[in-house]
Amino acid sequence: MSYVVAVVGATGVVGREMLNVLAQRKFPAKRVLPLASKRSAGSEVTFNGQKLTVEEATPDRFEGVDVVLFSAGGSVSRELAPQAAARGAVVIDNSSAWRMDDEVPLVVPEVNMAAAKDRPKGIIANPNCSTIQMVVALKPIHDLSPIEHVIVSTYQAASGKGHAALEELERQTADMAAGREPEVKVFPAPIAGNLLMDWKPGEGGYSEEELKLVNETRKILGAPDIGVSPTCVRVPVATSHSEAVLVRCKDKLTPEQVRKALSTAPGVVLQDEGTYVPGAHPQPRPAAGTDPVFVGRIREDLALPGAIHLWIVADNLRKGAALNAVQIAEGIFTR
Amino acid sequence: MSYVVAVVGATGVVGREMLNVLAQRKFPAKRVLPLASKRSAGSEVTFNGQKLTVEEATPDRFEGVDVVLFSAGGSVSRELAPQAAARGAVVIDNSSAWRMDDEVPLVVPEVNMAAAKDRPKGIIANPNCSTIQMVVALKPIHDLSPIEHVIVSTYQAASGKGHAALEELERQTADMAAGREPEVKVFPAPIAGNLLMDWKPGEGGYSEEELKLVNETRKILGAPDIGVSPTCVRVPVATSHSEAVLVRCKDKLTPEQVRKALSTAPGVVLQDEGTYVPGAHPQPRPAAGTDPVFVGRIREDLALPGAIHLWIVADNLRKGAALNAVQIAEGIFTR
Repeated sequence: MSYVVAVVGATGVVGREMLNVLAQRKFPAKRVLPLASKRSAGSEVTFNGQKLTVEEATPDRFEGVDVVLFSAGGSVSRELAPQAAARGAVVIDNSSAWRMDDEVPLVVPEVNMAAAKDRPKGIIANPNCSTIQMVVALKPIHDLSPIEHVIVSTYQAASGKGHAALEELERQTADMAAGREPEVKVFPAPIAGNLLMDWKPGEGGYSEEELKLVNETRKILGAPDIGVSPTCVRVPVATSHSEAVLVRCKDKLTPEQVRKALSTAPGVVLQDEGTYVPGAHPQPRPAAGTDPVFVGRIREDLALPGAIHLWIVADNLRKGAALNAVQIAEGIFTR
Repeated sequence: MSYVVAVVGATGVVGREMLNVLAQRKFPAKRVLPLASKRSAGSEVTFNGQKLTVEEATPDRFEGVDVVLFSAGGSVSRELAPQAAARGAVVIDNSSAWRMDDEVPLVVPEVNMAAAKDRPKGIIANPNCSTIQMVVALKPIHDLSPIEHVIVSTYQAASGKGHAALEELERQTADMAAGREPEVKVFPAPIAGNLLMDWKPGEGGYSEEELKLVNETRKILGAPDIGVSPTCVRVPVATSHSEAVLVRCKDKLTPEQVRKALSTAPGVVLQDEGTYVPGAHPQPRPAAGTDPVFVGRIREDLALPGAIHLWIVADNLRKGAALNAVQIAEGIFTR
């Protein structure tokens, strides 16, 4: 079997990565349709070494399409995802529009692929980048003993905010190297040589990004009572999010138990020397462009016996977005 | 009264900043002696717009000196601090050599200046940069209700590792802007566009830096039972450390109580809109070169009722090192 695949938002950082991942993983596509806004229609993208012309994403484009990967923002998904689903396509949506909808499964294949089977709206939501990598690392721990509390501080890359943000980091890096004051357009302040909290406001003094980590983690793990204590921070890194996580389960765990569970966990590469070695931990720069969720710095907390620290790094454009979406499609069409 | 002041390690990033701070704050110095290793002797540093020639730090140099600020590393301090104290000087030591010595007070003036009075060895230790800014923000909270547990993830600047590290970040930033692979000499891997844990190993899977946060916080606050759960991370920022802190006290606190306490706390600038506003939080880039400890993102934890999150930013070379040392000297000589 082979399938017709459409990518909506094909000119964005995640859309381009979706095309890369589809080609690299040899997804059985008999046709790939790159779609985008009217503004981007007519531009070219690369798929499997070939140039494809981007067309405008209109409802009739979804006729005869088997699977549509959306990564064009919430409002486009809200409008067009139901149109694609109504025409029989399976929709895998990377925006936040449908994630907390009770009739839309929120799927990380290593964690809850089975949830994708029940999709009354024909839509499957791809979680937020910072949530995906965290739950891939947490699931094997949750299976050892139910997680009660997760405290997470993030170190998130500029590309998580899109193409213009990534370009702004690059431009500001050049500004700094030249001794110029960095020019600010996309972020609320310089991101080069700085740290920002630039996400939209949520509730209770939290950013939207922080609340996503809370709500999506609970939904994916199917554990609505897990406490999640998030702080989300943008760092001057191009690609790959990193997370300092402290997890407390119902039972006390040892670092050895957690290392053992993670050493065979799907999607995880354990990068842990069993002790602290300077520079031996997972790092965002070498993780960029790769598929795994790297986990290291596994150690028992000094104050809460049996609580465990982890340092989790993954490419936010790949496992955090495009790869996870394509893996969902694989789970539905090729398994 | 005016005093003879020596700075040991005068050519390092912190030593230079000590000279700046002494001049800026008009410390009553009748003479300032810049001292360093034999290798650096003969070089020049600037104090109050004047060039001073650096001399080799030998024991006899401390004759007639009233106060010696050390920032030349642990082994120099271990050898020379007692020599300076034996000649009657008050030693304020920025290395980690004496910090946990029971006969050496560990002082942050806003927190425990009184401890400096009892210095049987004639030595006062200046705490680690990441500890200083944290305890300045925690003390007013500890006074509201005794702190039981602090969970801290750091975002530490390159200059915390010294001059060569700061230059490496600058050089690698230029490499990145030019599309070159960053050259690595000082850090164990690239720091530009990356995150590192580059400190020496401690025990139990922790870095030395992480254990400093635990032990020094307890000693400064005089509360040996406080639980501290640290993760220390280096970020590609030149100057100013940032910290995501979650604090749980004996009693439940509200963000309003904490904001009120911090709004009048010595050394603290409250930078908190009372809610989440993108970009309105304290940032390392604008904090560099300034004196305060900036605190923002004050909010109640979502899982632990009455536990409070803080985001704490300060210049690691000034409040984290040079300024704190000079403030200790002021507390002894000018109050």
